[in-house]
Amino acid sequence: MGLTDEIREQPAVVERLLGRLPGLLRPVADDVRRRGIEHVLIAARGSSDHAGVYGVYAIGAVGRLPVALAAPSLFSRYERPPRVARTLVLGISQSGRSPDVVSVVEGARAQGAVTLAITNEPASPLAAAAAHVVDLEAGPEQAVAATKTYTAQLTAVAALAAALGDATAEEWRALRALPEALHRALGDEEHIGAIASETADLAECVVLGRGYHLATALEWALKLKELAGVHAQAYSTADYEHGPVASFDPGSRLLAVRARGPMASDVDRLVTRLADERDAQAVVVADERPGRGAWLPFPADVPEWLSPIAAILPAQLFAAAVTVAKGMDPERPRGLSKVTLTR
Amino acid sequence: MGLTDEIREQPAVVERLLGRLPGLLRPVADDVRRRGIEHVLIAARGSSDHAGVYGVYAIGAVGRLPVALAAPSLFSRYERPPRVARTLVLGISQSGRSPDVVSVVEGARAQGAVTLAITNEPASPLAAAAAHVVDLEAGPEQAVAATKTYTAQLTAVAALAAALGDATAEEWRALRALPEALHRALGDEEHIGAIASETADLAECVVLGRGYHLATALEWALKLKELAGVHAQAYSTADYEHGPVASFDPGSRLLAVRARGPMASDVDRLVTRLADERDAQAVVVADERPGRGAWLPFPADVPEWLSPIAAILPAQLFAAAVTVAKGMDPERPRGLSKVTLTR
Repeated sequence: MGLTDEIREQPAVVERLLGRLPGLLRPVADDVRRRGIEHVLIAARGSSDHAGVYGVYAIGAVGRLPVALAAPSLFSRYERPPRVARTLVLGISQSGRSPDVVSVVEGARAQGAVTLAITNEPASPLAAAAAHVVDLEAGPEQAVAATKTYTAQLTAVAALAAALGDATAEEWRALRALPEALHRALGDEEHIGAIASETADLAECVVLGRGYHLATALEWALKLKELAGVHAQAYSTADYEHGPVASFDPGSRLLAVRARGPMASDVDRLVTRLADERDAQAVVVADERPGRGAWLPFPADVPEWLSPIAAILPAQLFAAAVTVAKGMDPERPRGLSKVTLTR
Repeated sequence: MGLTDEIREQPAVVERLLGRLPGLLRPVADDVRRRGIEHVLIAARGSSDHAGVYGVYAIGAVGRLPVALAAPSLFSRYERPPRVARTLVLGISQSGRSPDVVSVVEGARAQGAVTLAITNEPASPLAAAAAHVVDLEAGPEQAVAATKTYTAQLTAVAALAAALGDATAEEWRALRALPEALHRALGDEEHIGAIASETADLAECVVLGRGYHLATALEWALKLKELAGVHAQAYSTADYEHGPVASFDPGSRLLAVRARGPMASDVDRLVTRLADERDAQAVVVADERPGRGAWLPFPADVPEWLSPIAAILPAQLFAAAVTVAKGMDPERPRGLSKVTLTR
């Protein structure tokens, strides 16, 4: 089992998880309603933190609750944590072992918060710290770069948003239809490999997304950093235009994520502007052929709020293919271990 | 008036503001207590968003309230905002004109939230949208890169944290002592210029901080991007170790921000590791001489929770000096305008 196997396993992992989620999440939603809780705090690091960024949008829009991303050090190091008794506090961690994430959930539970762990390790300290646990049951993840646990985390967060909020029957149906769409999202490895081999000189790039796909941009950039040593920097298109755009060098590489919906025009407009004015060489993960640049497609029939679960698949395949094209080993990223224990 | 004048003006701007803040913020804290509000949401973009990141720590630790950074598009574009009636909602914007930030505050006020605008333009749409307004009165900011409005925003957020929370008499005294410390933080322009001229080849770098100084790292990186076109990427040291460290190239530049306190050892350890193992060429904004790299000092007698207001000053001077050393004009960053109107 290696990285590429784990990437290909994702439709099956998500399918297994979807069957269990409604039963696991109903007690969480019941606790939240009974306690009159109206706010969510998420503690996570690395890829899991990008699942948290997705949660800001999914739990905000579908769950209708505002989501804060925790500063774990307020709990673990400064020992002056905010009061979170009337808050749903989520810890998200593949290993369930990052001490700072565990300390947020432990501290929150001691204050009286409703706590939920989303982890691939049900025997971990994080699972022990939380009152409710979603065991992702994604199977062992051996590659250092997280793939299947990331999509499993996104799926759990999407189902939590639906359980907390006013999800329609249509939205529940779309969630159940995900595994089939994920199969199609993995469809064209040859096409992705061809684009990656044209991009084998990738050393540095900007990765743009907005709204739901800020998470996809962040996670794509992290895979490129971890696997291929690419200096990839992710931005919301709105934040990018507030300053960093000044540092875009003419002729350089641009990656972007684009999905049908209210944000499509923002991403299209900025990619077109950078291609036309600064000769950006674009590669776009998108549900329609982009106006500029090479196209890494994902299925267009996934609704926007769930599309980050599909869009990351071609992005992962691209990152793995660029790594190989650069002559590096995607199974052995330099200077990383699978579990990073930050306090 | 240009960038360097505005940088030098900061002690006076902060001094004027500090005198007015207690009177402006008391009614906000009274509203929050009367309504039993226990959560804060901050909407901002660019440098103002970094003042929001500072707010996560200052309002979390000193104000004891958890802070969420808003996804403005949930209000402005998706039209499916979270419910925030029992939330203190802050909009932070120099110009008060960014439509997405205004829409968060407008939407929140319509829902019944307590709303506060922190802006340099009291006649702006943001100020009109909020029930409470802190007019920064920093005077016109003409340089495209924000400097004095950023430190004024930090000062307002620090005073808000103190007003909301359980700040001690000692903490209020430290706030009032800031202007004098800021004078000293600007002290050694010649030393900073000398380090900058040795760094005139700066094209790309990582900027590390943690805890309160994540905000400083983000803002320093943004100044380098805006002014000098440097591809500077800021990270929390904890997030950096969870993956991106794999992309640190031997011999490359490293910037870091370090202050006495629970996080000092984290920053010291990672700078030392990257200097020793990967020959990182470090420049460190710090309140003590760092073990590795060149030193940009700031006053050591400012307590950690207020130190981001002092530490950003040598970082701004360094960014301006590098810009000049690179033969670029700090008054005219490419592709930027003073007010960016994102929806």
